[in-house]
Amino acid sequence: MRKGMLVIISGPSGSGKGTAVKKLTRNDFALSISMTTREPRPSEINGKDYFFVTKEQFLEARDSGKLLEHAEFVGNMYGTPKDYVEAQILSGRAVILEIDVEGALQIKEKVEESISIFLMPPSFEELAERLINRKTEDLDTIVRRIKRAKHEIEYINKYDYLVINEDIEKTVSQITSIIDSEYLKPHRNKDFFDHIKGENYDASTIILRTNDNT
Amino acid sequence: MRKGMLVIISGPSGSGKGTAVKKLTRNDFALSISMTTREPRPSEINGKDYFFVTKEQFLEARDSGKLLEHAEFVGNMYGTPKDYVEAQILSGRAVILEIDVEGALQIKEKVEESISIFLMPPSFEELAERLINRKTEDLDTIVRRIKRAKHEIEYINKYDYLVINEDIEKTVSQITSIIDSEYLKPHRNKDFFDHIKGENYDASTIILRTNDNT
Repeated sequence: MRKGMLVIISGPSGSGKGTAVKKLTRNDFALSISMTTREPRPSEINGKDYFFVTKEQFLEARDSGKLLEHAEFVGNMYGTPKDYVEAQILSGRAVILEIDVEGALQIKEKVEESISIFLMPPSFEELAERLINRKTEDLDTIVRRIKRAKHEIEYINKYDYLVINEDIEKTVSQITSIIDSEYLKPHRNKDFFDHIKGENYDASTIILRTNDNT
Repeated sequence: MRKGMLVIISGPSGSGKGTAVKKLTRNDFALSISMTTREPRPSEINGKDYFFVTKEQFLEARDSGKLLEHAEFVGNMYGTPKDYVEAQILSGRAVILEIDVEGALQIKEKVEESISIFLMPPSFEELAERLINRKTEDLDTIVRRIKRAKHEIEYINKYDYLVINEDIEKTVSQITSIIDSEYLKPHRNKDFFDHIKGENYDASTIILRTNDNT
């Protein structure tokens, strides 16, 4: 069976990556699920939204190398479980992982079957406009996010692909095209090679077949 | 303006590459045009079907490095003019070039902006069946073509992509996806980098803009 792959998606806050990821709903796509020590909210389901664990369980997973990356955020720990990602890849799925630049570069080294996509708005002007129009962040936060975005774009060359998000439907279709094309790399088609190299097909078979047809 | 690229397509006789190439008719696609010393047939147009030249002109082009590759076939010379390919790439087009394995590997080295696609039928059995059903080749030719195909598949790993041609429409859409995704590689988007790096967008601009919006 053909292996899937890990699809790493990064981009500045306001690039629209959250919206894009939510729209990548094809049957052979799966979202990566994080492990966290945070308390579940009433609507959240264990094993779907997050893997909810105790601090001890988290530290044990981290220390035994079972997390692809991890980070702390307002007192809670978050991490990407390696086993889950690898099981999805083995079952032929493209696992979508939304992650920041630092996490992305760490993970890319650790997962052989991975590709990385950087999502950008068409300009900083447009990025600022989106952040302002959300009306959820104060001015300080917006200024900090733009500054951070200016730092993040220095890493674009380390990514395999750059998608400029002008229109969300176009962006989703471009990400889908990227995944589909990646499946067409020769090294992802070992099964096909094994099949055709194993075919015992020579002149005598062809002669028999030609006689059948005439 | 965004540069185009050279799209090299190879595959065994009977893989359907000729049919696929004919269906790649998007506005930003162009077929490569060969230079030849062969006499034009009545229906053929110079500069569209071929660049028809004298033997002297051909040899001069070849010796002054103006051909990306060249070969002789039943007494006539054929070659791929570098200038034409490069002009198309500069004008933003994906230039499609159907060529054998040996030619493909030569050209890939010479053209920086190139990608290569190998087209295969799903199996040798299917390949033989297609060649038999054409009823244009005799048995000896079919046996020779299968043998050649078995040699050619040893080079698949040198290609960027492998397309298994089960259905011509799917094949054309896969080749199109490959080209579209290749345009999303960061190194092909230098104009965008220049644009965003040149944007003089900082905190004071954002403050002005926020005041406008409230």
